[in-house]
Amino acid sequence: MAKQKHIYFFGPKGAEGAAGMKNLLGGKGANLAEMCNLKVPVPAGFTITTETCVQFFDQGRRWPQGLDAELAKNLARLEKEMGKRFGDPSNPLLLSVRSGARASMPGMMDTVLNLGLNDESLKGLAAKSGNEWFAWDSYRRFITMFSDVVLGVERQNFEQAIEREKQRIGVISDAELPLDALKALVEQFKKIVREHTKTPFPQNPREQLRMAVNAVFNSWHNKRAIEYRRLYHIPASWGTAVNVQAMVFGNMGAESGTGVAFTRDPGTGERRFFAEFLFNAQGEDVVAGIRTPLGIEEMGARLPKVKAELDRIWQRLEKHYRDMLDLEFTVESGALWMLQARVGKRTAEAAVRIAVEMSREGLITKDEAVMRVYPESLDQLLHDTIDPAAELTVLTRGLPASPGAGVGKVVFTAEETIELAASGEKLILVRQETSPEDIGGMNAAQGILTATGGMTSHAAVVARGMGKCCVAGAEQIKISERNQLFTVGSVAVHKGDWITLDGSTGRVILGKAPLVKPKLSEHFKTLMGWADKARRLRVRTNADTPNDAKTARDFGAEGIGLCRTEHMFFEGDRIISVREMILAKTDEDRAKALAKLLPMQRQDFVGIFEAMEGLPVTVRLLDPPLHEFLPKSEGDYEVLAKDLGVLVTELKAQAQSLHEFNPMLGHRGCRLGMTFPAIYEMQTRAIFEAACHLLKKGVVVKPEVMIPLVAHQEEMRRSRELVVRVAEDVMKQEGLRVVYTVGSMIELPRAAIVADKIAEHADFFSYGTNDLTQTTFGLSRDDAGRFLPHYTQTGILDTDPFVSIDREGVGELIKLGVARGRGIKPGLKVGICGEHGGEPRSVEFCHETGFDYVSCSPYRIPIARLAAAQAAITAPAAIKPAKTKKARPAKRRVKKPAPSKAAKRRKR
Amino acid sequence: MAKQKHIYFFGPKGAEGAAGMKNLLGGKGANLAEMCNLKVPVPAGFTITTETCVQFFDQGRRWPQGLDAELAKNLARLEKEMGKRFGDPSNPLLLSVRSGARASMPGMMDTVLNLGLNDESLKGLAAKSGNEWFAWDSYRRFITMFSDVVLGVERQNFEQAIEREKQRIGVISDAELPLDALKALVEQFKKIVREHTKTPFPQNPREQLRMAVNAVFNSWHNKRAIEYRRLYHIPASWGTAVNVQAMVFGNMGAESGTGVAFTRDPGTGERRFFAEFLFNAQGEDVVAGIRTPLGIEEMGARLPKVKAELDRIWQRLEKHYRDMLDLEFTVESGALWMLQARVGKRTAEAAVRIAVEMSREGLITKDEAVMRVYPESLDQLLHDTIDPAAELTVLTRGLPASPGAGVGKVVFTAEETIELAASGEKLILVRQETSPEDIGGMNAAQGILTATGGMTSHAAVVARGMGKCCVAGAEQIKISERNQLFTVGSVAVHKGDWITLDGSTGRVILGKAPLVKPKLSEHFKTLMGWADKARRLRVRTNADTPNDAKTARDFGAEGIGLCRTEHMFFEGDRIISVREMILAKTDEDRAKALAKLLPMQRQDFVGIFEAMEGLPVTVRLLDPPLHEFLPKSEGDYEVLAKDLGVLVTELKAQAQSLHEFNPMLGHRGCRLGMTFPAIYEMQTRAIFEAACHLLKKGVVVKPEVMIPLVAHQEEMRRSRELVVRVAEDVMKQEGLRVVYTVGSMIELPRAAIVADKIAEHADFFSYGTNDLTQTTFGLSRDDAGRFLPHYTQTGILDTDPFVSIDREGVGELIKLGVARGRGIKPGLKVGICGEHGGEPRSVEFCHETGFDYVSCSPYRIPIARLAAAQAAITAPAAIKPAKTKKARPAKRRVKKPAPSKAAKRRKR
Repeated sequence: MAKQKHIYFFGPKGAEGAAGMKNLLGGKGANLAEMCNLKVPVPAGFTITTETCVQFFDQGRRWPQGLDAELAKNLARLEKEMGKRFGDPSNPLLLSVRSGARASMPGMMDTVLNLGLNDESLKGLAAKSGNEWFAWDSYRRFITMFSDVVLGVERQNFEQAIEREKQRIGVISDAELPLDALKALVEQFKKIVREHTKTPFPQNPREQLRMAVNAVFNSWHNKRAIEYRRLYHIPASWGTAVNVQAMVFGNMGAESGTGVAFTRDPGTGERRFFAEFLFNAQGEDVVAGIRTPLGIEEMGARLPKVKAELDRIWQRLEKHYRDMLDLEFTVESGALWMLQARVGKRTAEAAVRIAVEMSREGLITKDEAVMRVYPESLDQLLHDTIDPAAELTVLTRGLPASPGAGVGKVVFTAEETIELAASGEKLILVRQETSPEDIGGMNAAQGILTATGGMTSHAAVVARGMGKCCVAGAEQIKISERNQLFTVGSVAVHKGDWITLDGSTGRVILGKAPLVKPKLSEHFKTLMGWADKARRLRVRTNADTPNDAKTARDFGAEGIGLCRTEHMFFEGDRIISVREMILAKTDEDRAKALAKLLPMQRQDFVGIFEAMEGLPVTVRLLDPPLHEFLPKSEGDYEVLAKDLGVLVTELKAQAQSLHEFNPMLGHRGCRLGMTFPAIYEMQTRAIFEAACHLLKKGVVVKPEVMIPLVAHQEEMRRSRELVVRVAEDVMKQEGLRVVYTVGSMIELPRAAIVADKIAEHADFFSYGTNDLTQTTFGLSRDDAGRFLPHYTQTGILDTDPFVSIDREGVGELIKLGVARGRGIKPGLKVGICGEHGGEPRSVEFCHETGFDYVSCSPYRIPIARLAAAQAAITAPAAIKPAKTKKARPAKRRVKKPAPSKAAKRRKR
Repeated sequence: MAKQKHIYFFGPKGAEGAAGMKNLLGGKGANLAEMCNLKVPVPAGFTITTETCVQFFDQGRRWPQGLDAELAKNLARLEKEMGKRFGDPSNPLLLSVRSGARASMPGMMDTVLNLGLNDESLKGLAAKSGNEWFAWDSYRRFITMFSDVVLGVERQNFEQAIEREKQRIGVISDAELPLDALKALVEQFKKIVREHTKTPFPQNPREQLRMAVNAVFNSWHNKRAIEYRRLYHIPASWGTAVNVQAMVFGNMGAESGTGVAFTRDPGTGERRFFAEFLFNAQGEDVVAGIRTPLGIEEMGARLPKVKAELDRIWQRLEKHYRDMLDLEFTVESGALWMLQARVGKRTAEAAVRIAVEMSREGLITKDEAVMRVYPESLDQLLHDTIDPAAELTVLTRGLPASPGAGVGKVVFTAEETIELAASGEKLILVRQETSPEDIGGMNAAQGILTATGGMTSHAAVVARGMGKCCVAGAEQIKISERNQLFTVGSVAVHKGDWITLDGSTGRVILGKAPLVKPKLSEHFKTLMGWADKARRLRVRTNADTPNDAKTARDFGAEGIGLCRTEHMFFEGDRIISVREMILAKTDEDRAKALAKLLPMQRQDFVGIFEAMEGLPVTVRLLDPPLHEFLPKSEGDYEVLAKDLGVLVTELKAQAQSLHEFNPMLGHRGCRLGMTFPAIYEMQTRAIFEAACHLLKKGVVVKPEVMIPLVAHQEEMRRSRELVVRVAEDVMKQEGLRVVYTVGSMIELPRAAIVADKIAEHADFFSYGTNDLTQTTFGLSRDDAGRFLPHYTQTGILDTDPFVSIDREGVGELIKLGVARGRGIKPGLKVGICGEHGGEPRSVEFCHETGFDYVSCSPYRIPIARLAAAQAAITAPAAIKPAKTKKARPAKRRVKKPAPSKAAKRRKR
């Protein structure tokens, strides 16, 4: 077995590593090696591998065997390459020692510059640079940095000393310190180190190097790094590489300087070199922002040769890397040195434009272009956002429950929101939490703010569906509806006060913040077109109103995957009939109330079917427990009692009898259909009467009736029987045939387990992953706020399972269900209609598991389309999906009507 | 292929069938054939098979091919056998036509007697019997029965006619009707039939037979039969056989008669022939109870030869059938005919005695004896029951939530129950529903009655644990605590009124019903000993107090499978400390409150460990959500506010913030341990301090610490870490080693799915099938009352999944979990601690799935022991269980202390 190589050298004659070795050399090390191989001028150096770091930790923070010798060898080679000696009092080699992991973790780990300086080599630096002040300034910086990073002596100890010195002398900036003062400070610094560490500041450069390498290794497990890894799902097992590189100095005089550049505009994506430069400065100074950097033209004017070389280099690098790059470079006495090249961060807008243009330039393929944009980032493009330049007074923060921004006057009830919005007011609805009754008010508001509830609370889900911004669970706000105000600490916000919500970050802002409008660029449309070609998954929307349906269709929805019928029950006066229906004492009374609801519900379906002409619409029959529709306030009870001609007390007693301890696990879903079949009959009738009505007008309608909360196959069998019976009855009356299917939600563990038996009676499965996650985990999303944040923060869970599908648990149940369902019915159509349907990692899971479609809220449709495309490009389906042929419809002899013009137009 | 045989003949020369052919011939038919084969005198006849019935239904209620011809052939053979002709005017053959399914369904289906009578054969019957009145009486009975059963003319039509006739003549009983009146009635009857059916009463005997056979077939699907099958889990696919048999008459004079007999006493099991006889009567008359039957001795005195033959026959039959038999026989003019022999129904007491004695007599093996007793029936032997002879005023019915009977005065609060019980009062605690706070009151009461809640409600579970009778979910009762009364319709029951609860049937009885004490006979102990030898499953108990533990041990518990620590939190004053702990604002305050609880909880464990000396005790760390411990009443809040020195409003606001929408899926179980580790630390400390305390006294303690509501392996890993850390700390302090294990509840679908990963950190699994059923079905047991009864009544579900494990859904998850857990840890101990642990079919499932033990409430332990034995005898484990060696304990180097004397004594 070959001896393990711990260190990879790079220099002007080429490198032992290359860009493809990121896992071993880290991003920075691999790119430095790559640039060397491309003969780009890079200060020579070497990279200690990530594996060495892993071994270091495996062996109780000790160096693996052979590392010492390799380090000595590479250091010698570097000295030779640079013509300088490490610690040489006449011409010293100075080093930078930097971390560099596989994934970029900017600023998370430690760096030491100017390593190799000591009381002796200092002299050499002064002599070689011809600048004694510079040498002493470098030395005091080195002591500070090394002590802070390696010796654990906090930086402030040194900064306080400088402050005292400056005050004593009476100067303001560090640069004004005279040479003597610097020298005195270095002495002071060394004393500080001795006091804190009980040993003198290390003068031996090799000891300095050894200690610095250890410090970089150890920084892999510092607090910041751990937290960063948690946030970005980076495994702790990767370790970091250490890059040791000869120092070059941008602060050597007028022909020196330092710069950063992007090869294209990271804000807009425009194809222009985007760089900034500081003469006579080190990288630190750019970052510190003390001096304002110049545009690259100025540098070009003063150092035209350097500029020409830089242009050649960046163009070559961009072509080589085939991506927009973020570059760091230094000019030392007229010589250009590249210090870093990495793929540059960019806004969503820029990402889209760069991807599309690079593809058009022939740099990348269309599939690669599709892969270049983070699906989640598209959110930025779809919603109003707060002007990033604006100064804001942030009052408090909640959860970023639904993205975008909203500005409006504070109101506390849905009724008032509707009333005031009607006269043109912009409003923010502030509630402890929202309930289905608030939907009208939520729709009329610019945004919703709640004090309780999580990312999947009612407010959050509904707001996302509406594309309306929402900040949920802002726990610091205390609402007093009686006093019509809310407070955060000592600040009181009254009804009518202006506030701004930032649903993308969770900020609650006092006053009116300026907003920026979204625009969907041509580049965006082009990219989405390529994504649509690449993806296999269909993307549908969750929509309950014609308006939502239209929005979704504009965003590219290919049907409705979840049309909740209960939201219709709250609109306008119909809630009264709904309550009559619920509180009916006899079947006759219930039938009367249902008869009043039938035409309204039919009208709802007419609107939605029309908006979705030619596309499938999955209608879920009534799902929530009936008590959700009951009055909440005393006043509502009085109104209802008058309507029904009964006593308030009687009404309340009856309502009380519907109370449930665990409504999530209660009398809901198809359990309602089993016990009150008249409700499902009415809804089925409304669906098919609406369909027939439109069919007569030539509008193609494709209803898919979905049965919620099926646990046992017999529930599905009976529900299907009911739907088919009523549907056939309506169609017989109307003398028409509607193409329709009947399917089952799979949202309980039992349903997944007996999916084969349910599939006997179902034309399709739609996974309700919200409820499936709740039941599989035994975790109520409404109550999880008290411990789930703790779980994700302390790493008990990697991810909130309500945000991204828990593959290990819930995911396995889903797979089981798909396999069993398709086992007996190979053509079974399978989709998802939970909140996960618009989350990229979950979409990827659905692709891998052979789903036919995902369904999500309208504003997440582009995200889902892109995620589906990326899944198809990178993860070819492990499980073959059913042929995209339609699942067997409920009745065999179905005459398929010709699609309408509108439907044809919309088909790709 | 052999032609299918539809009919099996039986007669004095032997039979085509036998007792083993019950599936084909039904119970009655098989036994009639068997008796013929044994040369017991049975009126000849034949049986139409159950398969013929199935075909009849499969073919749209038409006779299968060949049945006609076979019927004709068998009828001819029967005529020859009997020397009579069907419909013969001089010597007619008369037939009985009876149903007979595989399982006994007494009275559920139809029977026609005296078939073959018509205006002509009537004369022959009169001539042959020499009794014209008898012949006409038989004819009018036949017309009534045939019309009712076959023609659908209701019996009351005929009975009204008889009543009118009797009034007209002025006689009281049917037997007093003169011959002329009978003749006139027959004419009237025929007219009634003509009016109702528009056709004359069928005179053709073959047509009569054909119609009667159809009627018996059809009766398989009558309402009563369907309901009976549902109750007793009899598949509708079985069908019924039809037995056609020559009539014999017990009403032919002084040497005729009819009798029923049991070969042993069905009430006590005593070995004595237990028979009743009526001279000159038909079977009907015995059933009608018009005349009081005589003891068998009287019959023996008057018909000694018949008696001697009967004795020979029953002894022979009992020996042949190897079981206690229920016999029917008729004596026709001095000739004995056996009409039926079947295994006799018996009380639990009799079942136990008969099984044990028959085994001792060498009739059956010990295993067979064990199989002869229904485990559920043992309940009768363990609880006080209402004197079956008593006359009762049943006020209403609820669910039979916990068996036994209780008599007491009505009270409405737990406090009052405790107070009054202290002065010796017998009380029934009546509550809307109970909560953990009521436990003291429940314990002090004779029984508990609740208006809401199901078989697994808090009241039901706790009452069963206490062996206290409970009627739950008595929905008709309306409680007014304010007025201190409850009503059922117009009846009001006030505080202090006496009522009696029958927890075995759900009856609520006005006044004091007389009770019968249970006694555990020697036979019972013998049988249980045999059962213990046969079973492989261990049987543990769910017990939270030393008292429960002792009771359970007396019933044969081999350890505690579930000791809930939360019940301890309610006792006495400690609830105040619990509330302080919950409402603590800082970790310090919480620590203070926990420090107060520690010694109390330690004392609890000392008591329980001592009671279970030498046996394992599984302690479940705190499980319920904290808000369950908060005050419920205004007064409690005031007391607590004073205790804590805070305002009531503040306290309530804090309590309100703990409210949960779905507490079942909320902040409970190990989620508490993750967020408030101090609670679990205190409990662990209490367990190990108690264990060490006893170890010092030489008492062997085997604690098994159980972590509830584990969903993710990381929860288990951290919980185990906590327990081990605290345990080791205590043992180090005490200088002792306790043998202990740490295991996981498996009560969430996710836990079953990732059982392999959880097993890495768990020494044992204990299935919490209550919660697992709730989450797998998405069904809250507290709320299921609104639809679950409908589900079982209408056949959507065969069984309430909270009563017996749902094998298809929940069961499959359980199997998956066991397989995965043992896959990585072959020695993993697996048990069950849900309510199902004491239900025979669930125990059978646990056996088949390779569990190590079941755990159930103390009073169900004998049931579980017997069920476990039956499972072992009939269903050898499909999945090999882990070796009964102990699972790897939490620490390897564990010194096993020598078992105490008491432990040795108790070990089998």
